[in-house]
Amino acid sequence: MNWDSLFAERTHQMKRSTVREILKLTARPEVISFAGGLPAPELFPVERIRQATDVILAERGREVLQYSTSEGMPELRELIARRLSSGKFQIGSENILITSGSHQAVDMIARILLDEGDRVLVENPTYVGMMTSWKPFQVRFSAVPTDDGGMCVDELEPLLAEKHKIMYAIPTFQNPQGTTLNRERRAKLAQILVEHNLPLVEDDPYGELRYSGEKTPSMLQMEAEYRGSTSPEGSVIYCGTFSKILTPGLRIGWVAAAFPVIDKLVQVKQATDLHTSTLNQFITYEVARDEAFLQEHIAMLRDVYRRRRDLMLKTMDEHFPQEVTWTRPEGGLFLMVTMPAHLNATELLKQALVHDVAFVPGEGFFIGDAGHNTFRLNFSNAREEMIVEGIRRLGVVLKEALKTPQAAA
Amino acid sequence: MNWDSLFAERTHQMKRSTVREILKLTARPEVISFAGGLPAPELFPVERIRQATDVILAERGREVLQYSTSEGMPELRELIARRLSSGKFQIGSENILITSGSHQAVDMIARILLDEGDRVLVENPTYVGMMTSWKPFQVRFSAVPTDDGGMCVDELEPLLAEKHKIMYAIPTFQNPQGTTLNRERRAKLAQILVEHNLPLVEDDPYGELRYSGEKTPSMLQMEAEYRGSTSPEGSVIYCGTFSKILTPGLRIGWVAAAFPVIDKLVQVKQATDLHTSTLNQFITYEVARDEAFLQEHIAMLRDVYRRRRDLMLKTMDEHFPQEVTWTRPEGGLFLMVTMPAHLNATELLKQALVHDVAFVPGEGFFIGDAGHNTFRLNFSNAREEMIVEGIRRLGVVLKEALKTPQAAA
Repeated sequence: MNWDSLFAERTHQMKRSTVREILKLTARPEVISFAGGLPAPELFPVERIRQATDVILAERGREVLQYSTSEGMPELRELIARRLSSGKFQIGSENILITSGSHQAVDMIARILLDEGDRVLVENPTYVGMMTSWKPFQVRFSAVPTDDGGMCVDELEPLLAEKHKIMYAIPTFQNPQGTTLNRERRAKLAQILVEHNLPLVEDDPYGELRYSGEKTPSMLQMEAEYRGSTSPEGSVIYCGTFSKILTPGLRIGWVAAAFPVIDKLVQVKQATDLHTSTLNQFITYEVARDEAFLQEHIAMLRDVYRRRRDLMLKTMDEHFPQEVTWTRPEGGLFLMVTMPAHLNATELLKQALVHDVAFVPGEGFFIGDAGHNTFRLNFSNAREEMIVEGIRRLGVVLKEALKTPQAAA
Repeated sequence: MNWDSLFAERTHQMKRSTVREILKLTARPEVISFAGGLPAPELFPVERIRQATDVILAERGREVLQYSTSEGMPELRELIARRLSSGKFQIGSENILITSGSHQAVDMIARILLDEGDRVLVENPTYVGMMTSWKPFQVRFSAVPTDDGGMCVDELEPLLAEKHKIMYAIPTFQNPQGTTLNRERRAKLAQILVEHNLPLVEDDPYGELRYSGEKTPSMLQMEAEYRGSTSPEGSVIYCGTFSKILTPGLRIGWVAAAFPVIDKLVQVKQATDLHTSTLNQFITYEVARDEAFLQEHIAMLRDVYRRRRDLMLKTMDEHFPQEVTWTRPEGGLFLMVTMPAHLNATELLKQALVHDVAFVPGEGFFIGDAGHNTFRLNFSNAREEMIVEGIRRLGVVLKEALKTPQAAA
């Protein structure tokens, strides 16, 4: 069979990521890796999950192992709705759909909203996984510049002269930069969304992992407030997940949005994989309904990740050459490094691997030809001594690269 | 927001199924329902799953709750490959991808193979869930007639005068009819696939649930044998699942196919939902690797379902009017009833619900305007006394309908 001649147009452009392949080949235990986006497994509440699982299998085994509805477990939808509500802003379970991780939510949103040729506004750089998922829908991405305060909202309106179908953004502790859209810009963005009838996909996997600074409301809430409403029946489609505050292996995410959007997504969910694992929804509910436990657990995650972030930043201050700059996130899992323009991060990765340290080159996160001199560091999944040693090694590699005239890649 | 004006073209044609909504409204405990497609929950190996889950969470908790690879757990892929291999026909784990139920496999196959306007050959009637999933890809279905021996393969070649991208079929214990493609036709179909370079999506969720008659090899195997090959590197993409032989709530299915297909599907899997639940793959592996247990469990399922099938057929013989005919499946979960052409099964359902008994009208399973006088009965998920009582009631409803002149719908 000549399969290559049979693959659909949209599939042909899908390529395995070169960087992923490089990193796969070097998954040696001696490599200190800041490349992943993983939460720290030593912090998973394994015993709690084990107990919860045992209880639900003992008490409701037949139910939790059977098929279930495409919308998701009613009690879990209600719990999520309650957790997202705040003061007068109230979300009901009819505004929630359970998905297999928030990545699936992002993919399904493309299926209900994107036609070939549609323009999509995104922060530049943005989440590479969203681009992998949305590119096959043959859309065009319009890059909105970013700085330390997140998306430069002031530069948005000129772009809106052209028709855009939707915007995708990670306003809080963005992947890859770790930066956050500040409150003033959120207010301005809410206004623009309403005035332009522009739907926003707010991807928020990291929002609860804040280590410093002041909490900002979600765009879901701020858009409702701008409309003078107390419900999420506006233009924001919010994607959340338990992956970063409990565990990712259960694959439990959700969408919170206006009912017509949820209603359509339920149909796509059914067409896609019928429903999310019944067992995993029950496990998540059984663990998360103990609000005191969940809050304590998240507080513990914040403490550990804060120490790791602080240690990484401190070690970078000590060991990185002054030609190099980086973001200082208030939360999340990542920070981003920018080198002088003549350096190439994919080349640097090869040198770094000689020193047994790894990261993700930033280029893949950028729209257009940019970011070759940037890379992303993950600080959540490395123990403290590894952070110090890994960053020290990276400092050596960076200093070497700055001394050596490098071939442009 | 006027969401309706924003939805993508492919989404607009998705409608909630009327029948599903009727059935939802009548999910009263007193209704005897033959409408679902559910395996019997009282037969789930709950204790075995509970023990297995406890062991893996105790021993490998951090690993089974973490992100994992898009391809799936290596040991599970190997186990599936081994179970599908037979004699000289050998499958390797590189030919296996784990999916979130086999429905997801069917959906992802559309993503890699179907462009707008492509023609797809299907049995008529066929699985409604496949159509729900594939219709948004804007394909055209070509109906291949069926009889008690499955798809009428002799009527295939004239259809192939027009270019068809792929064929989709459930050769064994088909949904909705319960019928099976006989061995002679399988051989002929294998020849046609090879000669026409026609890919076949072989959906096989029920294949291990045989209650009578002789086992037939999969099309995956027969196509390889026709090519004189011992490997699955041909034109058949096989979808399987643990939903019907263990439990559906874990959502563990798989694809077995030529490596270029698996390779492309892995990229789509990553774009869709990153990977299938790590925990659920480990649970499934831990339970299924005990081959003696699994064989015994499947033998028990066969015994119980065989009794239910036999009892349903016997009660139909006693209570259904002679103007009505039905299939006599050798396995699976379903059989299909055909009434005289002037009766309409959706109308009949309303009457049946008055008598507290339910089924699925057949119309939705058909290509084109056909099947309004057919309905599907599920025999796996009703206890024996319910089968007798439910079929007796249906007999009454049918006799009443045959006496009453019915308005055409």
